[in-house]
Amino acid sequence: MNSCFYECTIILYSYIRRHSYNTIMAGNTIGKLFSLTTFGESHGKVIGGIIDGCPSGLEVDMHFVQKQMDRRRPGQSRIVTQRKESDKVEFLSGIFEGRTTGAPIGFVIPNEDQKSKDYDHIKDLFRPNHGDFTYQQKYGHRDYRGGGRYSARETACRVVAGAVASQILIAEKIKVYAYVSQVGDIKLDKCHDDLDLKSIDDNILRCPDQEVAKKMISRIEEVRKEGDTIGGIVSGIITGVPIGLGEPVFDKLHADLGKAMLSINAVKGFDCGFAFEGLGMKGSEFNDTFINKDGKITTKTNYSGGIQAGISNGNDIYFQVVFKPVSTIMQKQMTVNTDGEEVEIEGRGRHDPCVLPRAVPVVDAMAAMVMVDHLLRSRTTKL
Amino acid sequence: MNSCFYECTIILYSYIRRHSYNTIMAGNTIGKLFSLTTFGESHGKVIGGIIDGCPSGLEVDMHFVQKQMDRRRPGQSRIVTQRKESDKVEFLSGIFEGRTTGAPIGFVIPNEDQKSKDYDHIKDLFRPNHGDFTYQQKYGHRDYRGGGRYSARETACRVVAGAVASQILIAEKIKVYAYVSQVGDIKLDKCHDDLDLKSIDDNILRCPDQEVAKKMISRIEEVRKEGDTIGGIVSGIITGVPIGLGEPVFDKLHADLGKAMLSINAVKGFDCGFAFEGLGMKGSEFNDTFINKDGKITTKTNYSGGIQAGISNGNDIYFQVVFKPVSTIMQKQMTVNTDGEEVEIEGRGRHDPCVLPRAVPVVDAMAAMVMVDHLLRSRTTKL
Amino acid sequence: MNSCFYECTIILYSYIRRHSYNTIMAGNTIGKLFSLTTFGESHGKVIGGIIDGCPSGLEVDMHFVQKQMDRRRPGQSRIVTQRKESDKVEFLSGIFEGRTTGAPIGFVIPNEDQKSKDYDHIKDLFRPNHGDFTYQQKYGHRDYRGGGRYSARETACRVVAGAVASQILIAEKIKVYAYVSQVGDIKLDKCHDDLDLKSIDDNILRCPDQEVAKKMISRIEEVRKEGDTIGGIVSGIITGVPIGLGEPVFDKLHADLGKAMLSINAVKGFDCGFAFEGLGMKGSEFNDTFINKDGKITTKTNYSGGIQAGISNGNDIYFQVVFKPVSTIMQKQMTVNTDGEEVEIEGRGRHDPCVLPRAVPVVDAMAAMVMVDHLLRSRTTKL
Amino acid sequence: MNSCFYECTIILYSYIRRHSYNTIMAGNTIGKLFSLTTFGESHGKVIGGIIDGCPSGLEVDMHFVQKQMDRRRPGQSRIVTQRKESDKVEFLSGIFEGRTTGAPIGFVIPNEDQKSKDYDHIKDLFRPNHGDFTYQQKYGHRDYRGGGRYSARETACRVVAGAVASQILIAEKIKVYAYVSQVGDIKLDKCHDDLDLKSIDDNILRCPDQEVAKKMISRIEEVRKEGDTIGGIVSGIITGVPIGLGEPVFDKLHADLGKAMLSINAVKGFDCGFAFEGLGMKGSEFNDTFINKDGKITTKTNYSGGIQAGISNGNDIYFQVVFKPVSTIMQKQMTVNTDGEEVEIEGRGRHDPCVLPRAVPVVDAMAAMVMVDHLLRSRTTKL
Repeated sequence: MNSCFYECTIILYSYIRRHSYNTIMAGNTIGKLFSLTTFGESHGKVIGGIIDGCPSGLEVDMHFVQKQMDRRRPGQSRIVTQRKESDKVEFLSGIFEGRTTGAPIGFVIPNEDQKSKDYDHIKDLFRPNHGDFTYQQKYGHRDYRGGGRYSARETACRVVAGAVASQILIAEKIKVYAYVSQVGDIKLDKCHDDLDLKSIDDNILRCPDQEVAKKMISRIEEVRKEGDTIGGIVSGIITGVPIGLGEPVFDKLHADLGKAMLSINAVKGFDCGFAFEGLGMKGSEFNDTFINKDGKITTKTNYSGGIQAGISNGNDIYFQVVFKPVSTIMQKQMTVNTDGEEVEIEGRGRHDPCVLPRAVPVVDAMAAMVMVDHLLRSRTTKL
Repeated sequence: MNSCFYECTIILYSYIRRHSYNTIMAGNTIGKLFSLTTFGESHGKVIGGIIDGCPSGLEVDMHFVQKQMDRRRPGQSRIVTQRKESDKVEFLSGIFEGRTTGAPIGFVIPNEDQKSKDYDHIKDLFRPNHGDFTYQQKYGHRDYRGGGRYSARETACRVVAGAVASQILIAEKIKVYAYVSQVGDIKLDKCHDDLDLKSIDDNILRCPDQEVAKKMISRIEEVRKEGDTIGGIVSGIITGVPIGLGEPVFDKLHADLGKAMLSINAVKGFDCGFAFEGLGMKGSEFNDTFINKDGKITTKTNYSGGIQAGISNGNDIYFQVVFKPVSTIMQKQMTVNTDGEEVEIEGRGRHDPCVLPRAVPVVDAMAAMVMVDHLLRSRTTKL
Repeated sequence: MNSCFYECTIILYSYIRRHSYNTIMAGNTIGKLFSLTTFGESHGKVIGGIIDGCPSGLEVDMHFVQKQMDRRRPGQSRIVTQRKESDKVEFLSGIFEGRTTGAPIGFVIPNEDQKSKDYDHIKDLFRPNHGDFTYQQKYGHRDYRGGGRYSARETACRVVAGAVASQILIAEKIKVYAYVSQVGDIKLDKCHDDLDLKSIDDNILRCPDQEVAKKMISRIEEVRKEGDTIGGIVSGIITGVPIGLGEPVFDKLHADLGKAMLSINAVKGFDCGFAFEGLGMKGSEFNDTFINKDGKITTKTNYSGGIQAGISNGNDIYFQVVFKPVSTIMQKQMTVNTDGEEVEIEGRGRHDPCVLPRAVPVVDAMAAMVMVDHLLRSRTTKL
Repeated sequence: MNSCFYECTIILYSYIRRHSYNTIMAGNTIGKLFSLTTFGESHGKVIGGIIDGCPSGLEVDMHFVQKQMDRRRPGQSRIVTQRKESDKVEFLSGIFEGRTTGAPIGFVIPNEDQKSKDYDHIKDLFRPNHGDFTYQQKYGHRDYRGGGRYSARETACRVVAGAVASQILIAEKIKVYAYVSQVGDIKLDKCHDDLDLKSIDDNILRCPDQEVAKKMISRIEEVRKEGDTIGGIVSGIITGVPIGLGEPVFDKLHADLGKAMLSINAVKGFDCGFAFEGLGMKGSEFNDTFINKDGKITTKTNYSGGIQAGISNGNDIYFQVVFKPVSTIMQKQMTVNTDGEEVEIEGRGRHDPCVLPRAVPVVDAMAAMVMVDHLLRSRTTKL
């Protein structure tokens, strides 16, 4: 190494030192009354979490929970990563004789397929668009194996809590749906009213239009063959919402939904109702005028997406969640190592060409948690 | 009234009763360490708030605070509402001999131009797309005058806190910019790098491209003449961001920015970096590869928008905030009154044809508060 | 000044610098669902606060609020400070047509009798047992006038919020009482069951036993003549408590009551049920055995003070709050100035010889707020 | 059963229904920046928790953690319960290569000695002074085995988190001590300055005065032979405290310490500095006058217990925690079953005659957590 590099490295180090505030990390909880706190790294023994604030008396359908886990599980189809994880949840507390007791619900999910050796080569590298660099700078010390804490494996814990939350919603006749509505440039151009939401799981992509799904799947396979990846949109629908959920002024229902979605790995955008799509509309077109329908006040249209002034108005809530392409690609890329040297890197291991099919249950889960939190905030009664 | 209507009304009332959870409202605070709690209604004597967690020792530039207020103030130009409010902030505590003491900063802004009579006609009406209906259902009892608590007047308090936060950022060389980048269909198609961000206030719209601004202003004037309204996009840019801000896993920096923006009245969408725009991109194109630039690690491109794995990477943060058209229009619309009868309504009073020029300082303010909160969360040292 | 002193001062300064973490201050909020955030300094224009999470629909009895304020007001009797403050509360929001709307309730109380000149002589002094020293060290910069933020004047805001909370409790048939039960060594040796709690305000001390009250008042007058001060105990009683309030495991009902009381200026101790008094008792004596009384399960005795395993059991809650003697005395004391020089100081102005009579409504208020918070946490239904 | 009883039972049931608000439970977290959330029941597979907000870079001494656990472990001496639990902590995340990463630290402690059969006889009984009754009423459904969630076994999780916190304090030269200072009527009448705090563990009671300890141990053995139990006081001392910890006005340092202590099972009282003991003192006696000691400002006396106006002043902090006698006694007692019938009960299983020796490490732990939380709140810098 020549002296020039050496100097640069010194500057680099002092830069890192100056800019690294290796501090506390207390963002691992979401929800005010119904809350989830998660822990665990991709290659630790387990990941897990604590659901706090779950009302007592809920009969937990374990089969339902596991079914949701299976929807997120790796290796479920040819268009997702071939890693093997059975993702069996073990509940440790808070459920007695099949029903919740009101005590915190602790749970763990074992990490089975930890090929940590796969990651030895990235120990001293910063993989493009991963958290390697920002975590190293922020914390000074990190578990680099498989992305450690910043691995999307953490979202499995969200699915567990979401599956519990969903069961509270079901009892209230509130239903949450999520589906893939865009892959790259291929867009499902239909309103959710015109879709059969029960057919979401009829294909491996989780898009309720079977024709469009085929095209999207082809696109993903194409991209995978190139060793590349692709992003897209997961759409969410919530039906049966009571009027009055959402807390002004900062905890508006769509603000909390937005934060929940934006906290999912790879998510870069969120909108609710007509937002990006409604940009050309005028107030006279956009306004959802009220009507009296059989003695019940509702609106003629639903451009607002079921939320007005931050509070649900009884209409269906719908929103879009934009995912960027998966960062790990099977192509050579240039990057920089921890010594500041530019080096070549190539993805190894088993990765998703497109995160969307497995992201669907995560979007489901986050939406369910936000809705239960606001349901409890608005009427904290016994189940 | 015939008996049929009477019956409907009974159904209506029982419906309202069944669905109204007139409960607590505790969403009036934002921020974990640097926090703002607001209070006040549009037609009360004052609105105000408490800034808590502001570090001691900050010399508060009152001129700067008022300047920000003036940017949000009604009556500032021909394309905004002609209501008259001087919006003078009165600080009540937490500042002694010109400097913050670490104690909570209480403040009020008098409501001067309360033409409450203007609102008598809407007392028993649910205006389309306003909070009239959802608030009535949620709380059972509301201050309807001028929108009461759900009036965008509340955002004036945010500008006060944001102006204090901005001064902390300035001391850290972090700069926040916001500008109008789309009005209806008219889009400013330039990257922020190619714009002169110092010229944002050179026109009444707050768009840094003077040519595009002219077109946008014409569009707004056109719409106003029709008695209609229009929405658009405010873009935000944050420069000089230290590496390491943002808390995994739920309090990712862009998740907190997203929630802050989505909590602003009329906002329906948010994205950070390339999201909606990047939908066609593949991983090989989207990945921001790391480079060593003069001994400092940075990235070649910045599609991530300065945030990776939820943590700032030192690049500029950029994001988009989508505003729907203003709900009050000067045209006749059908709606429903509190008795469930369908009636005609027409906007009165003085309203904005487009909220964007006045929304710019609010976006500024929310961004500044989120950044200071995360700055304190990452290195809570003395100014 | 000789060089030795000069050296000491340098050491002192570097010591102060090393030990002063002049940082954020975010402890100005209490309560999770029914919360109070306060602001304001003793000699500012006003003090005030925001009550958030108050359910909608409460008819606020302003006369009741003011009556509670008058019980805390200075100048109310010969055994308290002769300062003049009318302590008129002005509500700024959240109440419309006499009833709460669910929106945050902002309020201010003007500071009328600010003789700030009285405090010029303490600007550069650290008064014994006041916050002068600790605030200076913590924040580097403080409003010293009348104790600024650490003045007990802040408790007036608590009385406002407590008076609102009390009205919610009254509707639920829950009653909170507080009274003076010890002044110095003079103890009211009676169980609350043997006292007429309606006679608390029959004397200026607020002790429901008129004979004991006389002795206590004499003791305070004696002490005042000496230019000295004295402490004691305020006892609290809560009746009509529903079973089931209190959240395991950290937010036990008595833990939250304890924190609320210990946060009052001058409070040093708290116990609930038989604690300090029950130290000699064995389990067989202390256990409150359950009985069936007319078809209702209750306990034979109530040594637990109405709370078991952190949750109310339907019995009366009773607790004690220990106040230290007021710090400002009308005698000469030695202290140190900000230059580290030892100097003589003597109390000026108008101070309380004993804080207890005015502390009674503050204990009332804190208890009421904790109870409403837990009531909402346990059943957040409409009023 | 006669009809009278039947009627009573109906009244009873309707009473229970009326008074049971089987709601959410979100009190399982303590701490704002350094926080602990616990889960688990006495007879579940494990108990555990998540420590969030622990700074990165701490080298965790596992031996130290286990040593603290052993101090709380049952079966450690003849004066505590003879239950067998090895109480081995298993850390699941947040520690990599021996050092904390800033990620949440998940951990579990297996429940080994679950003789759940021992509790079958109490399934339908309300044991005096236990949580059986209040939990049943609050939640409607509970894990009764061994006290379930309200078992003091939960405190083992606190010891884990406290042991991590202690290591942060040690690096800052802050030391926390706890010891038994009173058993029933037998009191250790010495100031902590006159005790050798290093000798706390020299006897099985954890009282640093060996002579007094002997008397106390005899007292406990006497009580145990009677099948009875006894309470007492654990005293806490914190040395090396920097000036400036504690947040006005509600999160005063002693208010947070008080809440933490009052949240420990069986604790009924708390005081800090001279409180109950100082009741006879006048202001002129109680005031800790400032002196300049070798260029450093300190106080002549320390009646305040190291905290003034809620903020540490650099002196030793000292406080007392009052524990009631253990509820389970080996004597016959009358109680009521879930049908409202009065029945006889007698303690079975293996219980503590006095909780104090095992409570010492819990008091230690709670104090350490509060101190680290406030340390981080005051200067959130890297270790």
